[in-house]
Amino acid sequence: MSERVYATYWMETGGDPARTAEVIAGEQSSGTFVALATETAELKARSGAKVERLETLEVVDRPSLPGAMASDRYTRSILELSWPVENFGPSLPNLMSTIAGNLYELHQVSGLRLTGLRLPRSFTSAFAGPAFGIAGTRKLAGVSEGPIIGTIIKPSIGLSAEETAQQVRELIAGDIDFIKDDELQADGARCPFEARARAVMRVVNDAADRRGRKVMVAFNITGDLDEMRRRHDLVLELGGTCVMVCLNSIGLVGVREIARHAQLPLHGHRAGWGYLYRAPALGWDYAPWQQLWRLAGVDHLHVNGLYNKFSESNESVIAAARAVLSPLNAEAPMEAMPVFSSGQTGRQAAETYAAIGCADLIHTAGGGIFGHPAGVPAGVEALRAAWRAAMAGASLEEEATRNTALKTALGFWR
Amino acid sequence: MSERVYATYWMETGGDPARTAEVIAGEQSSGTFVALATETAELKARSGAKVERLETLEVVDRPSLPGAMASDRYTRSILELSWPVENFGPSLPNLMSTIAGNLYELHQVSGLRLTGLRLPRSFTSAFAGPAFGIAGTRKLAGVSEGPIIGTIIKPSIGLSAEETAQQVRELIAGDIDFIKDDELQADGARCPFEARARAVMRVVNDAADRRGRKVMVAFNITGDLDEMRRRHDLVLELGGTCVMVCLNSIGLVGVREIARHAQLPLHGHRAGWGYLYRAPALGWDYAPWQQLWRLAGVDHLHVNGLYNKFSESNESVIAAARAVLSPLNAEAPMEAMPVFSSGQTGRQAAETYAAIGCADLIHTAGGGIFGHPAGVPAGVEALRAAWRAAMAGASLEEEATRNTALKTALGFWR
Repeated sequence: MSERVYATYWMETGGDPARTAEVIAGEQSSGTFVALATETAELKARSGAKVERLETLEVVDRPSLPGAMASDRYTRSILELSWPVENFGPSLPNLMSTIAGNLYELHQVSGLRLTGLRLPRSFTSAFAGPAFGIAGTRKLAGVSEGPIIGTIIKPSIGLSAEETAQQVRELIAGDIDFIKDDELQADGARCPFEARARAVMRVVNDAADRRGRKVMVAFNITGDLDEMRRRHDLVLELGGTCVMVCLNSIGLVGVREIARHAQLPLHGHRAGWGYLYRAPALGWDYAPWQQLWRLAGVDHLHVNGLYNKFSESNESVIAAARAVLSPLNAEAPMEAMPVFSSGQTGRQAAETYAAIGCADLIHTAGGGIFGHPAGVPAGVEALRAAWRAAMAGASLEEEATRNTALKTALGFWR
Repeated sequence: MSERVYATYWMETGGDPARTAEVIAGEQSSGTFVALATETAELKARSGAKVERLETLEVVDRPSLPGAMASDRYTRSILELSWPVENFGPSLPNLMSTIAGNLYELHQVSGLRLTGLRLPRSFTSAFAGPAFGIAGTRKLAGVSEGPIIGTIIKPSIGLSAEETAQQVRELIAGDIDFIKDDELQADGARCPFEARARAVMRVVNDAADRRGRKVMVAFNITGDLDEMRRRHDLVLELGGTCVMVCLNSIGLVGVREIARHAQLPLHGHRAGWGYLYRAPALGWDYAPWQQLWRLAGVDHLHVNGLYNKFSESNESVIAAARAVLSPLNAEAPMEAMPVFSSGQTGRQAAETYAAIGCADLIHTAGGGIFGHPAGVPAGVEALRAAWRAAMAGASLEEEATRNTALKTALGFWR
């Protein structure tokens, strides 16, 4: 008897929800638009998707998406489907075609969103998951507790290799834990990857020799597979401790292949996530989406940040971060490290800590660090002080009486 | 002087459109949320994205997407941006992070959709494109003119390897040109890839020996890279003439790597396309999306079909098919073959032919062939007769007076 994979959807339909649920189950398994003699009861029992749960949420009078069947009432429901693992085996791409394939195009649905995914042991056991995860990242970054404090090289693109290295030098002088390339900075003619990696790692290694702690730099190796492997190998050879890839840009096979090859933590950027999630009646929740990348071997996953400068609600950010920190199942926890960014300062520390219940995260700030009137060192110190306060249950104002950098920061952190 | 890449968007904003356009250009190049001393005028001129065109379409009073800045008027515009190629070089993944990255998440936009893409020679010259395309596919399928008539193995999943081969045997006896695996059928325990390929190719090769023409079977090799390579090699060794991959499930790196390896046409399935396009104010149009896969080396691209059973309009289907047949630029035409499917019969032939102006396509029908009262041979013959009529400018009824199979088909094709 094959174990089953369970996926949950938010569904809106102008038809009978039970009938639409069966159409989706059929489209994603043994059914088709017409009845076939070869789709026997036995075949259907063996290979068909099953409707496990269907709960009505509400009824509205207009469809959320165009192209749907005409109706005067559209019912919104929670739908749970299950499939036998043997339909696709422990294969991430084929799981994806099954849980997030043609079904979104059905005219029976005027809204469909994948909200949850539960994978059984026979699926997850085929994957190693993040090779470094939280503990491995902490060890390499030399940060045994509290958040890893980071920032992103800015401007995103346009600096030369030497200018990038100069920015890294200033950041290390400011005692930062983590620095990442922007997702737009890969291997352009103005700042070739090799020149950048060499210039930056010279600075990183020099500082590590002096300080006894090495800043973690996530070099954006996104590219073709041979390019990614070559860039990874260069970073490794130069003594670097992290590489970054843009997940949607390289896809599941790209991530899986570089994860197989990599000997460094994989920092997963979610560029493009907006087109997958921002229409509420379509696409993906972060929770099921991030599972695929963790299985493929990603160690860090971007989750935006509380009170971010983008369009995502705090509720959505918290749900995403919690998902990244939750075990996939009892046998395969595979927790990854959430990366908070966008408009971040120490003002978000306490609420972030309270929301996820731990400090196993990378907290990156740009303006919150660079904007400090006393410079980068004070910016980093203020952010760290804000986290100390959060973890001790103290207020920022209280902590600021003991810390000048934080006191000054409170004047410009909005 | 670097050549530039041009991307067009449908944009909706609650702010000043010109300001929002600059924010998008900044976010996707050298800008950030705060002004930086290092973003010099020279750097911006060299590496910044430029707003090339901004045309107001209409003003509405409610935002299309949640999370956007509050306003009492939301302006919809056509926005064209350009980037210097040197920002990312001729790299598909890094192009994707740039034209379809963080921008969708900006709170300044209440709607953003990528509608067009123009790539310069310095980008496209780095790619070989489809290795077979239209001419190569026609040659392998033995169909020198008119559409390639095809179908999909059904039920999608649940048949054994031998049952699949039996269905292929019936289809070949019906003189079909093309058969494909369903996107859900890859390498499950019930129908392992190798057993299926061997069983099917025995039937295909036997028939080819007798008939002097070999049916093209698109085997779904979707999986990890080593699996795809192995499956491709097996199909090639067995004398097969096509392999299929699910583009969104394996991603750009997966497609590019299997294309580099492949010696057979790559049939590109778009499973999951629904979550990319179905919200009108978000995501992707097909035209820019399909360019990436053609550059990566895909020979056939699914475009749904006229009067399909899904939710897509005829207008959208036609635009997609035309895009697949349009040259990328003068130096790199790289045309691929559009694949029409879903609820297709001979009734869509004339309108399809008129809409795209040629018959360089694969037309797949399921019920339209299997449902014929006189069996599969009559179903295939009727579909071919409908296309003959379409290409000769004759009506179906006229052609039916000369063709019994078509005459019968008109009774059940709805």
